[in-house]
Amino acid sequence: MASSKTLAIVLGAGPGTGAALAQAFAKTHGAVALLARNHSSLESVVSDVRSAGGDAAPFRCDVSSADSVADAFAQIKQKWPQHQVTAALFNANSPLQLKPFLEASVEDLKPGIDVNLHGAFHFSQKVIPLLLQAGGGFLGFSGATASIKGSAKFGTFASTKAALRSLSQSLAREFGPQGVHVSHVIIDGVIDTDRVRQNYGEAEEGTRIDPSAIADTFVYLSQQPKGCWTHELDIRPAAEKW
Amino acid sequence: MASSKTLAIVLGAGPGTGAALAQAFAKTHGAVALLARNHSSLESVVSDVRSAGGDAAPFRCDVSSADSVADAFAQIKQKWPQHQVTAALFNANSPLQLKPFLEASVEDLKPGIDVNLHGAFHFSQKVIPLLLQAGGGFLGFSGATASIKGSAKFGTFASTKAALRSLSQSLAREFGPQGVHVSHVIIDGVIDTDRVRQNYGEAEEGTRIDPSAIADTFVYLSQQPKGCWTHELDIRPAAEKW
Amino acid sequence: MASSKTLAIVLGAGPGTGAALAQAFAKTHGAVALLARNHSSLESVVSDVRSAGGDAAPFRCDVSSADSVADAFAQIKQKWPQHQVTAALFNANSPLQLKPFLEASVEDLKPGIDVNLHGAFHFSQKVIPLLLQAGGGFLGFSGATASIKGSAKFGTFASTKAALRSLSQSLAREFGPQGVHVSHVIIDGVIDTDRVRQNYGEAEEGTRIDPSAIADTFVYLSQQPKGCWTHELDIRPAAEKW
Amino acid sequence: MASSKTLAIVLGAGPGTGAALAQAFAKTHGAVALLARNHSSLESVVSDVRSAGGDAAPFRCDVSSADSVADAFAQIKQKWPQHQVTAALFNANSPLQLKPFLEASVEDLKPGIDVNLHGAFHFSQKVIPLLLQAGGGFLGFSGATASIKGSAKFGTFASTKAALRSLSQSLAREFGPQGVHVSHVIIDGVIDTDRVRQNYGEAEEGTRIDPSAIADTFVYLSQQPKGCWTHELDIRPAAEKW
Repeated sequence: MASSKTLAIVLGAGPGTGAALAQAFAKTHGAVALLARNHSSLESVVSDVRSAGGDAAPFRCDVSSADSVADAFAQIKQKWPQHQVTAALFNANSPLQLKPFLEASVEDLKPGIDVNLHGAFHFSQKVIPLLLQAGGGFLGFSGATASIKGSAKFGTFASTKAALRSLSQSLAREFGPQGVHVSHVIIDGVIDTDRVRQNYGEAEEGTRIDPSAIADTFVYLSQQPKGCWTHELDIRPAAEKW
Repeated sequence: MASSKTLAIVLGAGPGTGAALAQAFAKTHGAVALLARNHSSLESVVSDVRSAGGDAAPFRCDVSSADSVADAFAQIKQKWPQHQVTAALFNANSPLQLKPFLEASVEDLKPGIDVNLHGAFHFSQKVIPLLLQAGGGFLGFSGATASIKGSAKFGTFASTKAALRSLSQSLAREFGPQGVHVSHVIIDGVIDTDRVRQNYGEAEEGTRIDPSAIADTFVYLSQQPKGCWTHELDIRPAAEKW
Repeated sequence: MASSKTLAIVLGAGPGTGAALAQAFAKTHGAVALLARNHSSLESVVSDVRSAGGDAAPFRCDVSSADSVADAFAQIKQKWPQHQVTAALFNANSPLQLKPFLEASVEDLKPGIDVNLHGAFHFSQKVIPLLLQAGGGFLGFSGATASIKGSAKFGTFASTKAALRSLSQSLAREFGPQGVHVSHVIIDGVIDTDRVRQNYGEAEEGTRIDPSAIADTFVYLSQQPKGCWTHELDIRPAAEKW
Repeated sequence: MASSKTLAIVLGAGPGTGAALAQAFAKTHGAVALLARNHSSLESVVSDVRSAGGDAAPFRCDVSSADSVADAFAQIKQKWPQHQVTAALFNANSPLQLKPFLEASVEDLKPGIDVNLHGAFHFSQKVIPLLLQAGGGFLGFSGATASIKGSAKFGTFASTKAALRSLSQSLAREFGPQGVHVSHVIIDGVIDTDRVRQNYGEAEEGTRIDPSAIADTFVYLSQQPKGCWTHELDIRPAAEKW
C-alpha cells in the first residue's frame, strides 16, 4: 500500500532562496530532502526546518555529476523509504559573472552548463520517475531575467539560463498530460538575502524580493489544481523597472 | 480616519468565471461590487455570495460607456461610502466569433473594442484612483490564448485581446511603483462553465479549467507581497497541448 | 488575359517613411497608388516618383472610414484598370502622445483605434482580394517598439499597435497558404525624417533609421520566395540600446 | 594600408544550407573560407564556388575544440593574409534526435553543447576581433523553431538552440554599438536539401525552404545599412502552419 507521507526535494538548498524553499515545503510536505554541493551550507537550514517542526535531512550533491546525483537520490530513498516524492525544486545557482565577451574564456561557460544543462538533466531524470510513481507532482525551476533576455556581457550566464527555461518547456509539454506539473519562475529583481543586506544595507519594502516570497510562489504553483496549471510567471518588486 | 473595511470590484460578474471571482473575493475582501451589462445575470451570483456570508450588491454597467461606468462607481460609493477598494477585476468578455477574415465586417471589431479598449480604459480610470487612495491594491485582467497569438480567423477577437494585454503592461509599469499591482492572466484552455458542461458533457479532471480555480489564481495574485509581484502568468489544464 | 503590369498600394504615403515606400515600390512595381488622409501631403511625393520615372497617383483616403477606403480603391481601379495589385503597405501612423494614464481621455484612444483597428481592417479587406486575384502578393504593416511592449504612459498608443501586430499574425496565418505574404516590421528607433532633422539636427550614421532603409526592408520582404517568408523582423540603428 | 578585399567565413559549410551560404557569400565577398568538421564534405562545395568564379578554400574545423578553431583561423589568415573578414556565418548543426526525456542520456546533450555553446563561443571569439578590425561586419546564426519553443521530446536539442539564440542577443547588444551586426534567423520549416528530396520526394513550391533562399536571407541581413539592422527574423514556407 502506498504511503501517504510526502517528501519534497530541494536542490540548491543553501542559505537564501534555498533555505526559504526548505522551510516552505517542509510545511506543506512534512519532509524535505535538502541537496547542495556544499554540505556544510545545509546545516543551519536543516536545523531551522527541524526547529519549526519539519523533517529534514541534508545530502551532498554535485548536480553536474550523474553519480553524485544518483548517490543523493539513493540516500534519500534510504532515509525515507516509504515517502512519496510529490514536489521537487531545482534552485541550483550558477554564478553570475558579467564579462566583456572577448575577455571571457570558454571556461566561464562551464558553471552554467554544469548546472543549467547537465544538472537540470540529471535532476529531472531522477525526479520525474518519482513524481510519476506518486501519481503526479510538481517540478519547479528557478529562472532569472537572463532566462528571457541576453543582455550585453551576460553571454555566458544568460545562454545557459535560456537553455534551462527551454528544457522546462519541453518537460512541461511532455509530462503535463502524465500528471507532472513543471513550472519556471522568472525572478526579475534583487533577492533580499543576508549577503545582499550585508553588502547594500536594508531596503525599503517593495524594492527587493524576499526569499520567503519566492518560496511561497513555488508552493502556490505546486498546489494548483490539475485543471489550472501555470507554466511560467514573472516575479519582481513593485518598484522594479522592466 | 480611514475605514479598515475593504471592497473588491468585479466587472463581468455574471455566471462562470465572474461568479467564481465574486465568491472568492467576497471571502478575502468582505464586500464585492458586482458589475455586468445584464443586471439580471447578477441576481443568482449576489444571492450565492450572501448565502456564503459575504456582502454583495449588483450594479448595471455597460463598460463601453463612460457614463454607465461612472454611474456604477457612484452607486458603489453610495452603497459602501467608507470601504476601501483594494482589488478590482476586469473580467468582461467580448464574444469570440471565428470568421474567415473576408467574411467579417468591421462591426465584428466593435464588441472587442467596446470591451477590451474602451471598457478597460474606462474601468481602469475609475478604479486606479480608488486603489491609490487605499494606499495600493490589485487590478487583474482576464486574458486568453488569443492575447498572445493571432491565429487564422481570430483577427477581430485576438487583436483587441492583444490590445488589452498591452494596456495591462503599460498600467503595471506606470502604477507599480505607486503601489498598484496590475496582473494579466492568460487563460489557455476551455473553461468548465455550466454552459460548456451542458453542451459538451462532463470532463475528466485536468482537461478543463474550473472557474473557481481561475478565481483562486486572481486571489493569489492579489495577495502577493509588494516585493514579489507577478505581472503575467498562463493557466491551462494538465492535458492541454500548447 | 491578365495584365502583366503590377501596382503597389501605399497607405500613409506622406513625407518620411511613406514617401520612401512610394519611391522604392515604384521601382519594383512600376506603378504606385499613394494614399493619405491629407491629399496635399502627397503632391511632392507623387512628383518625386514621377521624376524618377515611376508611375504614381495620389488618392485621398481616411482609412478609418470604410466609405473613404472604398472610394479610394474604386479610383485606383479606374486609374489602373488592367494592373495587378501585388503589394500593399499599411504605413498609416497614429500619433504618439505620451500621457500619464490618469490624465488621458478615452478620446486619446480614438486615433489609434481609427488607424490600427478600423483602418487596418478596412485596408486589408480591400487589398487581400486584389492580392488573391493576382495569384498572391505582399501585405506589409509598419510596427514599432510599442507593438511588443506596453511601457508606462504609452497605454493608449501601445495597445492599438499591439492590436495591429496581432491582426497581422491572424492574416499571415489565414492567407499565407493562399499565397498572400503578410509581414510586420518592428521599427525600433528614431526615424531620420526631415522633421526630426529640423528639430534635433543631423545624426551620426547608425543612430537613426533612414526612411529609405525602412522602405528597402519592405521591398526585400515583398520579394522573398514562397518557400522562405518572414512574418516579423525588428530593425534598429546599430547604436540603439534594446 | 588596409586591403579592400573581403572574406566571408562560413562554419558548417557542408552540403545543404552551408553550400548555399558558400555560393551566396562568394558572390558578395569574393572569397569564402569554408569550415566543417568533415573536411571531405567541403570538396564539392569548394569546386562549385570556384566554378562560379569565386575564391574558396576548405578548412577542417571541429568547432567544439578551441584548438581546432584556432588552427582553422590561423590557416585562413595564412591563405588570405590581406583580406578583411566582414562576414561570418555560424551554421553548424547539432543533430536533432527526438527522444522521450526519460530514454535520453546526458550524452544526448553533448552534441548540442559542443556546437551551440562551446562552438558558438569559440567561433565568436575568433571572428568578432576580425570584424572589429575590419571596421565592422556581420555575424549570423542559424536558428530553428526549437530556438524559441521547447516542445515535448525536444529537450536536449531545444535547450541548446535556445542557448545559442540567447548568446546571439548578448553579442548583438554588446557589439552592435561597435559596428558588428549580429543576427539570428529562425528557420521554421523543412529545408529542401538533397537528402530530404531523396527521402521524401520533390515538394511543391511554398512547402519547403530552399537552402539558397536561406543563404539569400543572410546576405540580405549582412548588407543592411548601419541605421537599420535586424537582430531576428523568422522564415518559413508559405504553406507552413505556425
